[in-house]
Amino acid sequence: MIARIREVYERYGYVPLETPALEYVDVLGKYLPDADRPDGGIFAMRDEDDEWIALRYDLTAPLSRFVAMNLQDLPLPFRRYQVGPVYRVEKPGPDRFREFYQFDFDSVGTASMLADAECCMVMCDTLEALGISRGDYIVHVNDRKVLSGVLEHVTACGEVPSEASLQILRSIDKFDRVGLDGVKELLGPGRRDESGDFTRGVGLASGQIDVVLRYLSVRADSRSAVCNELDKVVGDSRVGREGVDELREIDEALLGAGYAEDRVVIDPTVVRGLAYYTGPVFEAVLTFDIVDDKGVTRQFSSVFGGGRYDDLVERFTGQKIPATGSSIGVDRLLAALRTLGKIDVDDTTAAVLVTRLDKNLTGEYQRIAAELRSAGVNTELYLGTQGIGRQFKYASASGKTVCVVVGSDELNKQEVSIKDLRLGEELSKEVGADRKKWLEEQPAQFSVPRTELVEAVKKVLARYWIG
Amino acid sequence: MIARIREVYERYGYVPLETPALEYVDVLGKYLPDADRPDGGIFAMRDEDDEWIALRYDLTAPLSRFVAMNLQDLPLPFRRYQVGPVYRVEKPGPDRFREFYQFDFDSVGTASMLADAECCMVMCDTLEALGISRGDYIVHVNDRKVLSGVLEHVTACGEVPSEASLQILRSIDKFDRVGLDGVKELLGPGRRDESGDFTRGVGLASGQIDVVLRYLSVRADSRSAVCNELDKVVGDSRVGREGVDELREIDEALLGAGYAEDRVVIDPTVVRGLAYYTGPVFEAVLTFDIVDDKGVTRQFSSVFGGGRYDDLVERFTGQKIPATGSSIGVDRLLAALRTLGKIDVDDTTAAVLVTRLDKNLTGEYQRIAAELRSAGVNTELYLGTQGIGRQFKYASASGKTVCVVVGSDELNKQEVSIKDLRLGEELSKEVGADRKKWLEEQPAQFSVPRTELVEAVKKVLARYWIG
Repeated sequence: MIARIREVYERYGYVPLETPALEYVDVLGKYLPDADRPDGGIFAMRDEDDEWIALRYDLTAPLSRFVAMNLQDLPLPFRRYQVGPVYRVEKPGPDRFREFYQFDFDSVGTASMLADAECCMVMCDTLEALGISRGDYIVHVNDRKVLSGVLEHVTACGEVPSEASLQILRSIDKFDRVGLDGVKELLGPGRRDESGDFTRGVGLASGQIDVVLRYLSVRADSRSAVCNELDKVVGDSRVGREGVDELREIDEALLGAGYAEDRVVIDPTVVRGLAYYTGPVFEAVLTFDIVDDKGVTRQFSSVFGGGRYDDLVERFTGQKIPATGSSIGVDRLLAALRTLGKIDVDDTTAAVLVTRLDKNLTGEYQRIAAELRSAGVNTELYLGTQGIGRQFKYASASGKTVCVVVGSDELNKQEVSIKDLRLGEELSKEVGADRKKWLEEQPAQFSVPRTELVEAVKKVLARYWIG
Repeated sequence: MIARIREVYERYGYVPLETPALEYVDVLGKYLPDADRPDGGIFAMRDEDDEWIALRYDLTAPLSRFVAMNLQDLPLPFRRYQVGPVYRVEKPGPDRFREFYQFDFDSVGTASMLADAECCMVMCDTLEALGISRGDYIVHVNDRKVLSGVLEHVTACGEVPSEASLQILRSIDKFDRVGLDGVKELLGPGRRDESGDFTRGVGLASGQIDVVLRYLSVRADSRSAVCNELDKVVGDSRVGREGVDELREIDEALLGAGYAEDRVVIDPTVVRGLAYYTGPVFEAVLTFDIVDDKGVTRQFSSVFGGGRYDDLVERFTGQKIPATGSSIGVDRLLAALRTLGKIDVDDTTAAVLVTRLDKNLTGEYQRIAAELRSAGVNTELYLGTQGIGRQFKYASASGKTVCVVVGSDELNKQEVSIKDLRLGEELSKEVGADRKKWLEEQPAQFSVPRTELVEAVKKVLARYWIG
């Protein structure tokens, strides 16, 4: 999976970069969605010089630090990809991990909306390369400046409490879960959910609330039509109009590259949690439900997202270095692919177990294992102490296909015995009649001259297209 | 590099496993060489439930926790490999990192010395697969039980202070740096090094010191002869004799597999720092010096090491699960390979930059980039704002081989212009006369019909065996 993602990123010209997982706390800043908790949602500790260091919560802040430090030597735009674990203080739960993998790509040093459009394209290409069909995912795009425009419009309609901007954005972010009525309650007096929990409202006047609801209700047939509608909602806000213009440029670039509405749509309800975004934001969602092992229907909602963060490098250098990029949530997407059956998890298991029937013949067993390995066959020599029956069970349990067995009889006759562990299992699977008949004709255990060992093992593996 | 290591590990039947970087502190235990500092040398912090958690300092303790938790479901021996970052509280310096990568393989659930011999074999095969010739590395093996035997023998010759065992081991561990005379001082009154710093001695009697010196002086032509000498030094110590017997079994298994003294030797001076080892310990050293970028001669000494840790799983389960394994220090080995010129760092750079001479033609540039990508050519579309001259410079600086240039002239003629950025550079390299002549005949810039774009770009890349 990682290999396929990497291939797409490299196809677009992104190059690999590794940064450490530990950074100074100041480097990381406070950008997490729940940053109102005292530690800002990050794992922090003091090092031996009593400096605060912390585990990265994403790969973007460390990238910005790296660019700032190496600005003299980097050709801009600097385009890199990076895969690695990130850490957040969370109550662990399904789809919520304290440690999870992200796989990012970013263009640093470009203000062009072409770069943001490219992010959307790379997201589409990556998901398709992973076997997710067109129609089973969709990329949603919005722009933080449009959201700022809506906020300005709300403020123009009447006073807004100073802390309210963030709350309004959070209410918009909840549209997916609570619907238009829910957002209306959250912006007004407050909302009681099904469990009886009450969320305090922002306390806006109804005229102000209407601005937001009108914004969230924007629908149209095409991306450009959505932009025309958004233009009306942001009213006279300059930053709002800028945002709409950015979305128009992205639309144009996407059309130029042939990415139509079946892959990328403009969606006013997208906010994205991280506080560092300054312009376009995007997220890819899977549009199908999946029934998991336990029979529970799950949605894999947002698996891939990002946006423009023009101010992050500036924090370090004072110099404006615009940047944009996107990040795959590897663990969540992997879960989705597993459920879809798109990932084969067992392909690295050793194919062969060389059993040790008679411990005195260990030298011969070593030679057999070495011969198979030299011929490119992944081979384990049994290192435990149990008898041959348990060795066969171990071989099955650890996913082997073939056991090689040699006792003193075989050794004297210069023969080896080869046992196919998978035949029974394969015969019980649904396969074509021809293949079934062919499998039935294969012997499950047989002896060959010692000199034909490698060839015979490879023949058995070939029954299952291994090697 | 990671891919080549993985290939060897899988050839021996090890399977991949991922464990998290964060563990509860109790899980990790205190096994680091400098565990006398208060935090035991690990990065620890409290989580939101006020539990102490820490970053793993190796991959072995987490593996033991994993095995203990999954004992019911794991077929034993359980053989896994894992690559990932580990963390230690260190003053960062050359070859000393707070965060570095290890790549481990382990067999859990086997007491057989075959497993330890296999560790040595895998270490040899891995280093050779990475391009390090036989003779440029050597695997040193020792046994902690032999060291215990020596300590028993020392104690038998006279009283030993209770804290002294660890100090004696540390003195032995310093043999490489301080020599036999240095060890003698460290075991006796103490030692003043060249900088004038004084290290307090253990204060042993001279008869006791002689036992250790005799042990460190053991030399012989073959592994089995070394074992015979060691037998004499451990005297009547039962655990010491056990250790020598283990080394004999390893020798036998290595001989059975054809690993002679040119690859694996028994070396009484090997200790290994980690406190959890219980039996055989091994380390691979590179035997050549390297002059680095700054003209300083460096030794890459130990790059790969491990040993048997029969008690680690027992900490969790009370049940004895013997285990052994080894770990590559990825960063240090990578540094060595780079200096040897065995690693090509640039092979993922995009091959082509599609320049944007005229921003109004961006749609056409996007189509060109998409065509090249579809044909499997890694292609970057220029996303910056600078003029064409700076775009060429950017292309060179970021390692591209080809620039594609289209202006309105070319567009009207339905042509594209292709620029080879590497020709001059390649001509200045040392290559065969035939190849040089051929390169000289290649045009550095030329135009082709738009329809022949992909073919022409691929031809230029083929000049440098790219694609």
